[in-house]
Amino acid sequence: MRTPQVLINFKAYENSFGPKALDLAKGLDKLSKEYGVEITVSVPATMISRINEAVEIPVFAQHVDPSPIGAHTGSVIPEMVKEAGAKGTLINHSEKRMRLDEIAEAIARSKSLGLETVVCVDRYELVHPVALLGPTAVLIEPPELIGSGIAVSKAKPEVITRAVEEVRKVSGVYLLAGAGITSGEDVEIAIKLGSEGVGVASAVMKAKDPVKVAEDLVKGAIRGMEGRRALIK
Amino acid sequence: MRTPQVLINFKAYENSFGPKALDLAKGLDKLSKEYGVEITVSVPATMISRINEAVEIPVFAQHVDPSPIGAHTGSVIPEMVKEAGAKGTLINHSEKRMRLDEIAEAIARSKSLGLETVVCVDRYELVHPVALLGPTAVLIEPPELIGSGIAVSKAKPEVITRAVEEVRKVSGVYLLAGAGITSGEDVEIAIKLGSEGVGVASAVMKAKDPVKVAEDLVKGAIRGMEGRRALIK
Amino acid sequence: MRTPQVLINFKAYENSFGPKALDLAKGLDKLSKEYGVEITVSVPATMISRINEAVEIPVFAQHVDPSPIGAHTGSVIPEMVKEAGAKGTLINHSEKRMRLDEIAEAIARSKSLGLETVVCVDRYELVHPVALLGPTAVLIEPPELIGSGIAVSKAKPEVITRAVEEVRKVSGVYLLAGAGITSGEDVEIAIKLGSEGVGVASAVMKAKDPVKVAEDLVKGAIRGMEGRRALIK
Amino acid sequence: MRTPQVLINFKAYENSFGPKALDLAKGLDKLSKEYGVEITVSVPATMISRINEAVEIPVFAQHVDPSPIGAHTGSVIPEMVKEAGAKGTLINHSEKRMRLDEIAEAIARSKSLGLETVVCVDRYELVHPVALLGPTAVLIEPPELIGSGIAVSKAKPEVITRAVEEVRKVSGVYLLAGAGITSGEDVEIAIKLGSEGVGVASAVMKAKDPVKVAEDLVKGAIRGMEGRRALIK
Repeated sequence: MRTPQVLINFKAYENSFGPKALDLAKGLDKLSKEYGVEITVSVPATMISRINEAVEIPVFAQHVDPSPIGAHTGSVIPEMVKEAGAKGTLINHSEKRMRLDEIAEAIARSKSLGLETVVCVDRYELVHPVALLGPTAVLIEPPELIGSGIAVSKAKPEVITRAVEEVRKVSGVYLLAGAGITSGEDVEIAIKLGSEGVGVASAVMKAKDPVKVAEDLVKGAIRGMEGRRALIK
Repeated sequence: MRTPQVLINFKAYENSFGPKALDLAKGLDKLSKEYGVEITVSVPATMISRINEAVEIPVFAQHVDPSPIGAHTGSVIPEMVKEAGAKGTLINHSEKRMRLDEIAEAIARSKSLGLETVVCVDRYELVHPVALLGPTAVLIEPPELIGSGIAVSKAKPEVITRAVEEVRKVSGVYLLAGAGITSGEDVEIAIKLGSEGVGVASAVMKAKDPVKVAEDLVKGAIRGMEGRRALIK
Repeated sequence: MRTPQVLINFKAYENSFGPKALDLAKGLDKLSKEYGVEITVSVPATMISRINEAVEIPVFAQHVDPSPIGAHTGSVIPEMVKEAGAKGTLINHSEKRMRLDEIAEAIARSKSLGLETVVCVDRYELVHPVALLGPTAVLIEPPELIGSGIAVSKAKPEVITRAVEEVRKVSGVYLLAGAGITSGEDVEIAIKLGSEGVGVASAVMKAKDPVKVAEDLVKGAIRGMEGRRALIK
Repeated sequence: MRTPQVLINFKAYENSFGPKALDLAKGLDKLSKEYGVEITVSVPATMISRINEAVEIPVFAQHVDPSPIGAHTGSVIPEMVKEAGAKGTLINHSEKRMRLDEIAEAIARSKSLGLETVVCVDRYELVHPVALLGPTAVLIEPPELIGSGIAVSKAKPEVITRAVEEVRKVSGVYLLAGAGITSGEDVEIAIKLGSEGVGVASAVMKAKDPVKVAEDLVKGAIRGMEGRRALIK
């Protein structure tokens, strides 16, 4: 996973699958190349192979079941999403919460296959515990702000600041921030607060021109990184 | 859904996805045409579109979540599997049991999209209740025989007989039988007992030559139907 | 279960357990005797034995797990609630939905111990299927009206009428109606529409004087039965 | 929670509730006083108040739902078990696994009420993450040894050693060990390896004379502590 990261979760909207989803992914792919900022798309299981064939940006699953290879009808397991071309997967999204033992197993199984994992949590107290399980990144999303249009980076900057402190207790794990992220400014602030990127969904998926919104986010990500570099100097 | 029906559930074995799964589906497609018996394959969500492009036999999902279009990260909803090319879906498989309200919702939502539904139950007492919900078929599988190699049609013929009586209380719903089905003879008996076909998984998926095993099952299905016609005369 | 039935679900409010719950149960017990109308209370697992010792009206559990006797830490199984004095149990409440196989198992296990079962459903399409599983009663509650104060009997009388038709397809199963029931008039209408009683929760539990509200409901139940008898003559 | 701790989980056996459970709890109460070793019993929700009235040893719930006070039919919430007399609760038992967010919430809610929490995990990798959530103790139980009669302390001593190292990364959290603990010797070893006590179920509950088995465990606990003190000198 490259930073700054703009992770766009397609969810299950009417443009999250089928030709509209393919078009959107292609637009994001072009955007990513143009600005040199990594955009990752997490897409429905039925779309992974088709989107992956059409783009070069990383494609993620939205969920994996930790079941092993075997008699597990209806499970979407790490081996399946990898075979379909996924580079990683979301785990424990607020719309698909998992048991603790399943989170640990899903991370371990995904890692052993070379899949990246972004584990979602709803409060900073869970950042350090989850980081200890060895994911690629922890994505913190205060649930009350999800889909609200009120950005976590503006409404609750202390959540990001604290989450960044927590994630740093474990080396090699990124902290992403999400919930209510709508504009480039929201992204810029989130990154200046110490996150390595953002998770976004409705602001892009429900926009009239999703790629244009994504472009604004990407620009914000660039400004955010410049701001951090300026601080270091 | 045409009868006699041979429904082959791919589950999550190592040949259930990727190139091996595609080859197997193609082999079953050829077999189906050769004998004029409908073979349906229920495959992992990540494989629906690719298998559907490669074959003409009906491709089913193994499960659908009844969530509506919207913010439902990680859900595989009826609209998604339909878009990917599925003609129908399994519901409430023994490895993916669902809540009663979710079963009702999944059947209703799938139907409204023109998807067929095969609802799995573990006892004949559930056949009539589930048939009332309006699925295409009810698949009865005594759980203690699943994957056992001991066919329900031989070990517990009364389960099929009773299930057939139950399903007939609702018009227009098929009864399929499964669990331990291994040979053409098992299929033949199941159909002579009144079922409209069988559900099979491990006997095919774990065979050295899965298509050959499937051929034996298909032949049994034909003999079963001939036996029923002979009885009627 | 006697009819007309006034089933008061204590839920998990601050007066649903402890001394307040005991006092309330005693008040309802007195009320039931005074009017000769059966009031059943469904109470938290921790309260069953204590409330049952203090009153003569039937005490129900709010849920049972269908696990058998054995290594099932944290399960509240039918044998436990029976031992504690429960006469029956709610099953599949909208706040505790269950899998279809678990509902069937919970009804069967409860019945074998002589426990009554009231199975909750959210739509009339589920009344007949659930009635076939052999519960004592089906309680229909349109979810959008639960806790709304807008009574199902006034806002959606056709839901009750239709549910009554459905339940009559199976002999020996009662139909109760719930959701938004607040006044004696609501109960009266529900019974005149053909239900054998009502399920109530918040209107009683959140009232300043819960027993007084219950008294109004009981009076409505009596008027409802009188209305039905008048119709028959 | 006092150490050494002998935590006896009653599970859902036929002697886990009713008069047999009361007798057993009284026997353990007497034993605890005789030896001066704390025995905690985790009992079904329906038994908490009755057992708590009959004994002085700490009574625990086997599970709590993290739902708040309110409309949560069928939930057993921290406030309820506290009101019934529980001093604490098991959380995330292998027979009642919970979602990560629910574990965090159940610990936080229980703590705020003064309830102790013993969180079960199946592998040492989860000890540190769970300890960070602030429970009273983490109980490690390799699932393959549960109910096996093969003690974790003999078969997998490294699991305990490693878990002890992990728990010490967070101050103020105890480590208990369980799975297959059958004899006083098993307890002695577990404590010498650094655990502060053990969790036991079937070895006591399924014994002909459960109190006698418990006595052996208590003696082992005493020897274990003596062994540790000897080492320190």
